[in-house]
Amino acid sequence: MTLDLHITLTYDMDVPTDILLQVEAAAIPEQRIEWAHIEASRCEHFVRVAALDGIGDRIWLRTSGRLSIDYRARMTVLRDLVDVATLPQMPLHQLPGETVQYLFDSHYCPATKFHSFVDTEFGELQGGARIAAMRDWITEHFVYQSGSSDGTTTALDSFVMRHGVCRDYAHVMIVLARACSIPARFASVYAPDVTPPDFHAVAEVFLADPSGVGGSWHLIDPTGMASAADMVKIGVGRDALDVAFLTAFGTVELVEQNVSVTRAD
Amino acid sequence: MTLDLHITLTYDMDVPTDILLQVEAAAIPEQRIEWAHIEASRCEHFVRVAALDGIGDRIWLRTSGRLSIDYRARMTVLRDLVDVATLPQMPLHQLPGETVQYLFDSHYCPATKFHSFVDTEFGELQGGARIAAMRDWITEHFVYQSGSSDGTTTALDSFVMRHGVCRDYAHVMIVLARACSIPARFASVYAPDVTPPDFHAVAEVFLADPSGVGGSWHLIDPTGMASAADMVKIGVGRDALDVAFLTAFGTVELVEQNVSVTRAD
Amino acid sequence: MTLDLHITLTYDMDVPTDILLQVEAAAIPEQRIEWAHIEASRCEHFVRVAALDGIGDRIWLRTSGRLSIDYRARMTVLRDLVDVATLPQMPLHQLPGETVQYLFDSHYCPATKFHSFVDTEFGELQGGARIAAMRDWITEHFVYQSGSSDGTTTALDSFVMRHGVCRDYAHVMIVLARACSIPARFASVYAPDVTPPDFHAVAEVFLADPSGVGGSWHLIDPTGMASAADMVKIGVGRDALDVAFLTAFGTVELVEQNVSVTRAD
Amino acid sequence: MTLDLHITLTYDMDVPTDILLQVEAAAIPEQRIEWAHIEASRCEHFVRVAALDGIGDRIWLRTSGRLSIDYRARMTVLRDLVDVATLPQMPLHQLPGETVQYLFDSHYCPATKFHSFVDTEFGELQGGARIAAMRDWITEHFVYQSGSSDGTTTALDSFVMRHGVCRDYAHVMIVLARACSIPARFASVYAPDVTPPDFHAVAEVFLADPSGVGGSWHLIDPTGMASAADMVKIGVGRDALDVAFLTAFGTVELVEQNVSVTRAD
Repeated sequence: MTLDLHITLTYDMDVPTDILLQVEAAAIPEQRIEWAHIEASRCEHFVRVAALDGIGDRIWLRTSGRLSIDYRARMTVLRDLVDVATLPQMPLHQLPGETVQYLFDSHYCPATKFHSFVDTEFGELQGGARIAAMRDWITEHFVYQSGSSDGTTTALDSFVMRHGVCRDYAHVMIVLARACSIPARFASVYAPDVTPPDFHAVAEVFLADPSGVGGSWHLIDPTGMASAADMVKIGVGRDALDVAFLTAFGTVELVEQNVSVTRAD
Repeated sequence: MTLDLHITLTYDMDVPTDILLQVEAAAIPEQRIEWAHIEASRCEHFVRVAALDGIGDRIWLRTSGRLSIDYRARMTVLRDLVDVATLPQMPLHQLPGETVQYLFDSHYCPATKFHSFVDTEFGELQGGARIAAMRDWITEHFVYQSGSSDGTTTALDSFVMRHGVCRDYAHVMIVLARACSIPARFASVYAPDVTPPDFHAVAEVFLADPSGVGGSWHLIDPTGMASAADMVKIGVGRDALDVAFLTAFGTVELVEQNVSVTRAD
Repeated sequence: MTLDLHITLTYDMDVPTDILLQVEAAAIPEQRIEWAHIEASRCEHFVRVAALDGIGDRIWLRTSGRLSIDYRARMTVLRDLVDVATLPQMPLHQLPGETVQYLFDSHYCPATKFHSFVDTEFGELQGGARIAAMRDWITEHFVYQSGSSDGTTTALDSFVMRHGVCRDYAHVMIVLARACSIPARFASVYAPDVTPPDFHAVAEVFLADPSGVGGSWHLIDPTGMASAADMVKIGVGRDALDVAFLTAFGTVELVEQNVSVTRAD
Repeated sequence: MTLDLHITLTYDMDVPTDILLQVEAAAIPEQRIEWAHIEASRCEHFVRVAALDGIGDRIWLRTSGRLSIDYRARMTVLRDLVDVATLPQMPLHQLPGETVQYLFDSHYCPATKFHSFVDTEFGELQGGARIAAMRDWITEHFVYQSGSSDGTTTALDSFVMRHGVCRDYAHVMIVLARACSIPARFASVYAPDVTPPDFHAVAEVFLADPSGVGGSWHLIDPTGMASAADMVKIGVGRDALDVAFLTAFGTVELVEQNVSVTRAD
């Protein structure tokens, strides 16, 4: 699957302000960058640093007045479509060190509170089959509703409210997975069929490989809008706190934002 | 049903401390005080004030050193056993003014977050039938577990964790009722079959009378340990914050607490 | 002081919706209603019920389509201006029963967490002098900033953030007062110099009368925008949860809101 | 400074339980392991994985019945004592990628709420001088009080309550630093003068080096119990959620815990 990305962002700020940007598709083996170009209006500096888990970059900018970002890229997704439901769970002591942090509670994802629910509702399933059942449970019980959550909404709130946007769906998926000791992280992605077109967010869980040797991360979208074969990864983290596409160290005003993701073939 | 109550409380405090006590069975029409006696060890003062909604009293004490409270009473419950499931819901604009506050969110009971869940799960039922279904749903999905909650646990937490003690069961019942616009309050009660013997807490909901004229409060115990016919009411409020049996305005240490509730007949 | 009030509210709703309104100046001894008139566009019903603590009324409406409310009144404030700083604190056991609930934590006002701060910062003062010092401390340390808080902002947040609107100032005043065992409640009021013109909110504390017999409530405005002599009380409660001017039991859209409070003399 | 560590932990569990342990002094350039030995009672497995930021290890164990851990080590701290107050702040765009996550809010450390307070209270200072002033402000305004916090206590709570234990002091230090864009993380350490002897926790901030080229992490202990020259680092993370010394994936009961840290010279 090859995708064409075109993202434009325009912000206004009164005084020189530091901005941290994370909008570029990550350079990682599971997706090939055919070409990519990012352009910013005049900035004091423009510095790239590695993002979390070595997936993708963040860019430091400093500017005042109007900031315009134009990012275009063509990406080919190489990720295989795997039937997650067939994959075994990895025993805890075989988990690679870097996945261990994704077993724990994080700010938006207080997973330990979900132990009983997960045991009762999904206790008869294991590993990937359990993950698939959780994903389907969320899809069935939740209503996607723009504007129904904000920066204070946790997975606890979303689980009760039964509605939310992609970040909330991802948070609920993450707490359910972590509550049965499957590492789960938050992934910021681009996908072609997101409605309305926007940055998208999904969960990513770590399961054992069919071979029984080693394990891998698998993208799970409980909103049902995207599949692992057509998502382009931007960055990952414990929850939405970790992968904002723009963080301003000061006051900025959004003027315009446009996200276009289309199939190239 | 006639019940014998015998409650003893012993506390130690280093310095003169104000204490607010709410342990006596309320003098209200639905329960008759056959006799009652409360005795405190030597106190600087011992003053009675009305508690919330005019149900029961609170007692102000001030003392230092050891405080011993001994409360004995024989109470006859006159409350009729009503089949809540048959009662209609009261239209909002016919609710008496004093019930209106019990429609709203309170600290432990953020009811508005439960609208969607209640609509989906109980949307086909109305009024008392809906309340009965909610009570049964809680009884079925929750596990009573001593020590599984604390002063920070809200109905949101309990709903997710699926376990708790009587206060948590009552809080969840309250949010579900309020989420469909049925006034619901928290009631502190004595009941004979509570295990282990202790102060007990239940929900109380306001439903229309069968006559269609006026409405009444009905005690609902989702733990299944008590029925409206064998509960003696101490006090009511919006949630557990309102009806602590003892509030100390300083540091006190619990030495011993004993609650005995037995059938007299 | 005589004030002219003119409030207009316009809301749109798609389906018949129950609305609870609390916008009228309360009929209480401390303020005289010279005349008052409230008019609503066509409603299914329009029913008045008593509000909390017997201060003011709430109105139940049910309507669909466009709802327009027009409320006009002339009010004379009879409240004496008292120098709060001279009033003694009331011993706990002399507090009237109905003030006791205002000693406790409520949702937006987790007062017990403020004990140490209050002891350290205001420990040398007592009663009204302490209240005056707290009010001045807030005025000095906080910045009034429209839009800087929302329905999730507690007094804990405001205390840390050092900015907010009138409701936040009132919440912080309430926690500080309760933290030293002075009953404090939230009051919704009209006042002439509020900028921009809007519903206003302040704290009200209960202090002993100079005579030493009995006590009274005193309005405290830490924003400095209003004084006790020019405020018209609408309603009271534990915090902002209790005195919303409009509560919709369904989805409504605000079209227009206008609050005008002017001196008549 | 050379320190002798001796830690013993005893836990009981009914069923085979996975345990994650993080108690060993980290093998990092700033501290030399003279010798170290860890011994566990019979376990199903005992597997070491890297901890966060590559500082220290975690150990996966699986066992049932009684678990006894005995860890002994002699460590020489090579860290130079630097006068933090003299160090400049690092411009945001020069921060290494791995420090960027430590600018953001984390679960226990909602730093963005502290912007105004930090600006007002410490606005005239910069970089290390500001950090030193923050540390001194905490030391002066807080009371160390065992048992005064629990797993729900955030830096927001601690800031208001003005008391806590080492984790709370560290959390408050972290929010103040992050609120002025200085990366700050949580460090779990051993130190000789901690009273009562226990695992200790401090903050670590990232400041520019005096040379102006590059930057370094500096340990800051607002409790005043330890200095950078006598702390042995175990692990780091965003806040206390990240560096528990023991995490049980099931129910375990603490039988005994002993932490001894003594100067060897």
